[in-house]
Amino acid sequence: MFIKVVNPNTTWSMTATIEACARAVAGPGTRVEAVSPTMGPPSIESHYDEALAVPGILTEIEKGERDSVDGHVIACFGDPGLDAARELAGGPVVGIAEAAMRAAAVLGRGFSVVTTLARTTGRAWDLAHRYGMRDACRGVHACDLPVLALDSDPDACRIVTEACLDALSEDGSDTMVLGCAGMADLCAHISAEIGVPVVDVVAAATLTVPSLVTMGLATGKRGEFATPPPKRYAGLLDGFTTGG
Amino acid sequence: MFIKVVNPNTTWSMTATIEACARAVAGPGTRVEAVSPTMGPPSIESHYDEALAVPGILTEIEKGERDSVDGHVIACFGDPGLDAARELAGGPVVGIAEAAMRAAAVLGRGFSVVTTLARTTGRAWDLAHRYGMRDACRGVHACDLPVLALDSDPDACRIVTEACLDALSEDGSDTMVLGCAGMADLCAHISAEIGVPVVDVVAAATLTVPSLVTMGLATGKRGEFATPPPKRYAGLLDGFTTGG
Amino acid sequence: MFIKVVNPNTTWSMTATIEACARAVAGPGTRVEAVSPTMGPPSIESHYDEALAVPGILTEIEKGERDSVDGHVIACFGDPGLDAARELAGGPVVGIAEAAMRAAAVLGRGFSVVTTLARTTGRAWDLAHRYGMRDACRGVHACDLPVLALDSDPDACRIVTEACLDALSEDGSDTMVLGCAGMADLCAHISAEIGVPVVDVVAAATLTVPSLVTMGLATGKRGEFATPPPKRYAGLLDGFTTGG
Amino acid sequence: MFIKVVNPNTTWSMTATIEACARAVAGPGTRVEAVSPTMGPPSIESHYDEALAVPGILTEIEKGERDSVDGHVIACFGDPGLDAARELAGGPVVGIAEAAMRAAAVLGRGFSVVTTLARTTGRAWDLAHRYGMRDACRGVHACDLPVLALDSDPDACRIVTEACLDALSEDGSDTMVLGCAGMADLCAHISAEIGVPVVDVVAAATLTVPSLVTMGLATGKRGEFATPPPKRYAGLLDGFTTGG
Amino acid sequence: MFIKVVNPNTTWSMTATIEACARAVAGPGTRVEAVSPTMGPPSIESHYDEALAVPGILTEIEKGERDSVDGHVIACFGDPGLDAARELAGGPVVGIAEAAMRAAAVLGRGFSVVTTLARTTGRAWDLAHRYGMRDACRGVHACDLPVLALDSDPDACRIVTEACLDALSEDGSDTMVLGCAGMADLCAHISAEIGVPVVDVVAAATLTVPSLVTMGLATGKRGEFATPPPKRYAGLLDGFTTGG
Amino acid sequence: MFIKVVNPNTTWSMTATIEACARAVAGPGTRVEAVSPTMGPPSIESHYDEALAVPGILTEIEKGERDSVDGHVIACFGDPGLDAARELAGGPVVGIAEAAMRAAAVLGRGFSVVTTLARTTGRAWDLAHRYGMRDACRGVHACDLPVLALDSDPDACRIVTEACLDALSEDGSDTMVLGCAGMADLCAHISAEIGVPVVDVVAAATLTVPSLVTMGLATGKRGEFATPPPKRYAGLLDGFTTGG
Repeated sequence: MFIKVVNPNTTWSMTATIEACARAVAGPGTRVEAVSPTMGPPSIESHYDEALAVPGILTEIEKGERDSVDGHVIACFGDPGLDAARELAGGPVVGIAEAAMRAAAVLGRGFSVVTTLARTTGRAWDLAHRYGMRDACRGVHACDLPVLALDSDPDACRIVTEACLDALSEDGSDTMVLGCAGMADLCAHISAEIGVPVVDVVAAATLTVPSLVTMGLATGKRGEFATPPPKRYAGLLDGFTTGG
Repeated sequence: MFIKVVNPNTTWSMTATIEACARAVAGPGTRVEAVSPTMGPPSIESHYDEALAVPGILTEIEKGERDSVDGHVIACFGDPGLDAARELAGGPVVGIAEAAMRAAAVLGRGFSVVTTLARTTGRAWDLAHRYGMRDACRGVHACDLPVLALDSDPDACRIVTEACLDALSEDGSDTMVLGCAGMADLCAHISAEIGVPVVDVVAAATLTVPSLVTMGLATGKRGEFATPPPKRYAGLLDGFTTGG
Repeated sequence: MFIKVVNPNTTWSMTATIEACARAVAGPGTRVEAVSPTMGPPSIESHYDEALAVPGILTEIEKGERDSVDGHVIACFGDPGLDAARELAGGPVVGIAEAAMRAAAVLGRGFSVVTTLARTTGRAWDLAHRYGMRDACRGVHACDLPVLALDSDPDACRIVTEACLDALSEDGSDTMVLGCAGMADLCAHISAEIGVPVVDVVAAATLTVPSLVTMGLATGKRGEFATPPPKRYAGLLDGFTTGG
Repeated sequence: MFIKVVNPNTTWSMTATIEACARAVAGPGTRVEAVSPTMGPPSIESHYDEALAVPGILTEIEKGERDSVDGHVIACFGDPGLDAARELAGGPVVGIAEAAMRAAAVLGRGFSVVTTLARTTGRAWDLAHRYGMRDACRGVHACDLPVLALDSDPDACRIVTEACLDALSEDGSDTMVLGCAGMADLCAHISAEIGVPVVDVVAAATLTVPSLVTMGLATGKRGEFATPPPKRYAGLLDGFTTGG
Repeated sequence: MFIKVVNPNTTWSMTATIEACARAVAGPGTRVEAVSPTMGPPSIESHYDEALAVPGILTEIEKGERDSVDGHVIACFGDPGLDAARELAGGPVVGIAEAAMRAAAVLGRGFSVVTTLARTTGRAWDLAHRYGMRDACRGVHACDLPVLALDSDPDACRIVTEACLDALSEDGSDTMVLGCAGMADLCAHISAEIGVPVVDVVAAATLTVPSLVTMGLATGKRGEFATPPPKRYAGLLDGFTTGG
Repeated sequence: MFIKVVNPNTTWSMTATIEACARAVAGPGTRVEAVSPTMGPPSIESHYDEALAVPGILTEIEKGERDSVDGHVIACFGDPGLDAARELAGGPVVGIAEAAMRAAAVLGRGFSVVTTLARTTGRAWDLAHRYGMRDACRGVHACDLPVLALDSDPDACRIVTEACLDALSEDGSDTMVLGCAGMADLCAHISAEIGVPVVDVVAAATLTVPSLVTMGLATGKRGEFATPPPKRYAGLLDGFTTGG
């Protein structure tokens, strides 16, 4: 079993952390490889960043297909490019927000999300609606740390923990979701601090892929998610291809 | 890793099929045991059957806790007793309807459910609403076979296959869910026939448990799903206990 | 006209209170009888309690059918066993949560619910969703009194009243619903205290039954709520029957 | 107990039918009086008709208050003027659409509505949404008879019956609602023909009023439905008053 | 291009303000005329006021049709009589609440509404639901000024501004809607004060009409909004006509 | 007034048609310029195409800002890049799907969408949900013509017209939306054929921009849609900038 984890931003130190979190949960027979695209933003903190991350993500999905990976994870909480990636890939493609919300929903009636900057909470709500989590998602809260500060700010863990406590108290949720791939390594510590299950978004998605593959399941290809009609892309994107 | 699968009906031949399906997907290090309760209905085809199945299910959850299982699966598409089981169990408890719908949702925009008797479709819709699948679930269709006929009727596979084809054509779905634990062994064959992914409900739930356990996740216990206050149950139910 | 009120718990002192409240609103030509099942929990404060209450409720519905009652009330705010009871009974079966929410909805734009323990608020929200009251139900609030303390705690009425005042102030509702059959005798007093209509859940359900019977209406039996297929229930539940 | 039923149109023969249906279900101690306003349309078949019916309805509510009625019924399936009437009246005001939908919802999972002209189905859906019946209401079907033809067309009963059969077959509902006060006298006959419960809209509303009055319940008056601030209305409406 | 703006209340000073706001945004080739009906309330602050405003509005729509206006605006935030007016008019009819909410929705993820008296917030929520704005509308807040005090109270602008600031802080919205035609002249000032876009409800509706007319669009007339069947209205309303 | 219309695909003949449609409705004082990006797909018929169209769109928005345009239109029915464009632009950015759905909603209770390939209908439903049009949008129908065949296939107009007639008959809608910018020039003809209003998506968006600009309104910038934090984009996207 070979799972490719795409960190949609170009910060390889974060990619390394993500890979470590993914490998920590993958079974012994599972090969996990995390990459950053060669193009795109160093962190995703706006719709603009997300839009510019997508072509690089899709290039990595394309490469993954050529490398015969069994499935992909897209490791950014906005689940960027997920629909397009599902068109390209033969195996399952799992976004970390979708996987984490679905895992959290199995653990109780409601969950809270703590994410980075306030400007990204709208996107998280969009996804909650899309995934049918409008009621299960009790709140999306920003801790006001930029994505890369999760790594560099010595107070990051404390700040996220406090945001979690505030969220729990306000929302009355059963579980927490830390809404950024860069927070994956904080989950165990924070869960111990706050006393509720904390879903590691990277782990949740990484574990979803082999489950689907074991069942022989992949994206349904009879309609919307069939391989896109091949065409020639212009300008900088010349060279993009759906693999045909 | 020890997973207990509770088949809520008392038909042990069906329990054996369920166990085989569950073991077929569980990893080598995972012990899977399927049981039927000692009390309850031979099949679940009404709200009444479901109600009478629940005490037996809860007894098995109780036993599972005493046996230190890591997690439970409730293997009936009505997800009977799920909330109560989550109160009792320390580890995750996963219903096959919930697991299957969440798996199907990751594989496309919409799925169709084919189930047994028409009278059970209302319950399936209830669950679809509860799990946030009102939009993703495109249709719930009965094949009009009683549960136990799935095993005894030589035409069962053909009848279910035809119901799947009708459902796909009517709903325009990307994937299928076979909404009865007793259909689990038909999935591979039907998927080959109809050309779309078919979610095996038993497999989907069985694989969800070790994923959650690996992440250290279990039902959130800070509120609604805390162990119930201990009390003395009267009459036939004397002897029931929340384990305290 | 003969109405049977089933108090799903086994505490007969509470059954007596419920019967008094029901009789207080029933017309002179209406016979009202309240009972507790011979098996089940002394109070319902968890999903587990509710699950174990259901077989006893259904036994009482069965007996009611043999006694030719015109309709049944299920007098616990979780409306336990309602769907199954509707399958069994020829006449209408009314849950107190459903009846009370529908009555409250006719009295204004929004209502608040005050119930007992916080762990039961999730179930109340489930019902609000199921009954189409997601918008009309403005809040579900716990007063943190166990069910049986409503009777034994001399401060119960004051505590519930305060919870009502907090709820009104927070929710801006037009009316109140006291979400426990054990609070039925507090309604008049609390309504006078807080100055808004307070729906007595037992009365609301008790009055719904003769209205339906007068109109010649009962549960529709052409599909989901037809009498369940007869089968033999195993173990402790041997002897349960759908009456056929 | 004195219940005033306002037929919002000015066709007194229809008012007489409505009064008969209402009296047929009211208890012996209940006085029921049906009236038509002195101004307005002879039948309500458009938003325009409905708008012009409302001032006359409100005049009758005003008169009812002066006559100390205990509660009002508004007997048109569009529930015209209901919010305004609730502001004016001290006792409960019940619309026939609201009462009928709430009664039908207690009798099964879903109901179908058969109404008069196709152009009125939009209004019925509006009400279904408003009353939280978006899921319970499975279909709104026109039989394409004008309101007054219900009385004059000798085929009316057959036409409505056929529309009911088509609706049941298409919607798979448990019960029927005949969505026009002028159909109230057809319910028993049609129910016998089609074999499912048929809610008599006039009866449903008429029986709701004494239930609420018996419980001491009326519209909540602390906010939106308080008596309107008194003011002087200009032109033709000079003389309208909120009773102050 | 000739646009008729109907101020549903009879306070001509407010009509003059509305006309000025409408003309300020209409293009040079557009004739704008605002009127008050000859019957109805001096201000609309209850469902009762709104109901009594509607016949006068419809008379003005009728007159507008005879005067061959290209489209109508109904300038009260409850959008009174909108459906009926759409039946009468050949050209588009635009309500200020609908137009303003749709404009606000294009400017961000969520908007807040500040309106006059608290008792009118329910109607605003009704409209938000009807127009699909349940999620986009983040809050409806009363400033507790009666409609006519907007003109007479020297503190009106300050009071509305403070309500806006409170609303923004509570709701986290991107934009504001001032939910009363009488607030139209405050928008520019308040927008400057609070630093977010403030939608002028009168302007939004006034500008929608010529856009629709330019595209050759008007209310769809094939069903619900066809010209109402002509009939004779009784009493005070004798003389009302759908124009036939 | 200067409006820039971005056709997200690189087919300049289609851009010319779009520009003609936009200019046909823009007032005399309004300058309209339509462009295609220098990179991206020749037509948008998949999530993949859409994803690859977005960087080019954003480059054009950036250029538009430097050219001091007053507002932008994104002229593809998937509204690609809309959120990101709103972050970049100081003035309003309007998507043709959003504008057309909002216009259609003002013209009746429900509209139908006819679009190109079946695989794009999912995206249209996504947008309908996002814009609050889940109820107003009665159906999304494919005519099974590829985007560029709209121009090259001599039967295109007939095929689209037939799809419209089928949609109307199935959905019972009041109005039609032609869900592709390449269909803009067919609207008038098809409206005449089918006898219902047909919303020209390009015109609807083009007319929304000057309305907003006239009111002094633009995207709210206090949160989610503030200018994105500037950062350095890697690889092919080096050179992208938020303009700071």
